[in-house]
Amino acid sequence: MIVLKLGGSVITHKDRAETLDGESLEQAADSIAQTLGNEKDALKGGLVLVHGGGSFGHHNASKHGVSTTAGTNDAGAVLEIHGAMKTLNQFVLTRLLERGVQAVPVHPFSTACRDGDGALELPTSQVESMLAEGFVPVLHGDVIAQTGRGATVVSGDELVVELAQALEADRIGLCSTVPGVLDEEDAVIDRISNYEAVESVLGASETTDVTGGMAGKVNGLLELEVAASIFGLDGLASFLEGKNPGTTIE
Amino acid sequence: MIVLKLGGSVITHKDRAETLDGESLEQAADSIAQTLGNEKDALKGGLVLVHGGGSFGHHNASKHGVSTTAGTNDAGAVLEIHGAMKTLNQFVLTRLLERGVQAVPVHPFSTACRDGDGALELPTSQVESMLAEGFVPVLHGDVIAQTGRGATVVSGDELVVELAQALEADRIGLCSTVPGVLDEEDAVIDRISNYEAVESVLGASETTDVTGGMAGKVNGLLELEVAASIFGLDGLASFLEGKNPGTTIE
Repeated sequence: MIVLKLGGSVITHKDRAETLDGESLEQAADSIAQTLGNEKDALKGGLVLVHGGGSFGHHNASKHGVSTTAGTNDAGAVLEIHGAMKTLNQFVLTRLLERGVQAVPVHPFSTACRDGDGALELPTSQVESMLAEGFVPVLHGDVIAQTGRGATVVSGDELVVELAQALEADRIGLCSTVPGVLDEEDAVIDRISNYEAVESVLGASETTDVTGGMAGKVNGLLELEVAASIFGLDGLASFLEGKNPGTTIE
Repeated sequence: MIVLKLGGSVITHKDRAETLDGESLEQAADSIAQTLGNEKDALKGGLVLVHGGGSFGHHNASKHGVSTTAGTNDAGAVLEIHGAMKTLNQFVLTRLLERGVQAVPVHPFSTACRDGDGALELPTSQVESMLAEGFVPVLHGDVIAQTGRGATVVSGDELVVELAQALEADRIGLCSTVPGVLDEEDAVIDRISNYEAVESVLGASETTDVTGGMAGKVNGLLELEVAASIFGLDGLASFLEGKNPGTTIE
């Protein structure tokens, strides 16, 4: 079973509000559809997709002052952020369906929540049922209800870590705008097995942007029992075929 | 805590595909908004809404041959049925938000599933968190993944029974197109405490239409520990204020 995240910055133009990067999304959808068509063995355990918010989620969340820790009790604000993410999700689903991928939506707001300490609760029986029936569930960064804070943001990266653990994923991939985690000379770091080794490049782990920064991604992935890969769009097909492009975190 | 269902036939014109009954929906939204504004005590435990599919869900489900027992493995069909229900849900949310009700969506496909025997699994932690934060969660009849059958229909009535049990609802109301369960002379039956007493009017319980028939509703509600009311749109305000309009099932 593979959990694959398509970065929000990959599939949207992050500097313009609610603007799809159609070309990149189609390249990603092509890679996924081709692998599902040609390499059935590589994906026989199923594929779960997660996409980030990019200029759909971040723009609307920041407009309402909502983050992973700052919430809102205004249903109108919730619907605006959630609605923007559903619009982006629909773009992703459509591109996949057009290519014969049996993609179906799983909206985190409808199923997940956080307790007062921020711990994420994400039911996954529905995702397992979808996988067993041959569907490709597509989740996304979203708002979710949090005890004491109304609704806060859940990032795609957080969902990837949670899904990988709950579903005991065999492989985890993060498709990013960069070809991997880069060192001081912008060369791809081949392998990361502890955070201290990359702290000088990525910065202290406590200061990470939990909804998108590379430090947050690396920290989250280091917690997992299986290896994860961070790679660019050009590495996606290779990852889906079973190779390890970009940076391997283990 | 109150679980209230708005019947699909109440808020849509059931004989015309995807046609909202805007007038009835607005009357229902008015009753809900007024009670939330004026009778805070009556609703202080929170309100969960469920709406049926009406001409949005049933039309699309029947087009694809999907029912509570017959499923589909075609993601395109799933998205068409699910998408129509989301459109109807958005109409309901908008009418409520316009009146100051903090309504938020919970799409069953994103959270629920069925096992091979058809038993429904519906997580409710997210609904409890929403209630605790002052939101009014709005669920709806939908398709959900089912082991061995792809995706099958889950009816609003089924969700009401499941939610009422899981959330230990204090009161349960079904707002229908009729003023209650009717006897042979079309008079409202005041109280039903066992199915045998109404079998002559409603027909044998095995032959019931699980996605909407009155027999199915009565059977489902008889299973619950607390009393439930079935009433028409004119009884909605009275129900929300704490009275027992229409037929009481206990």
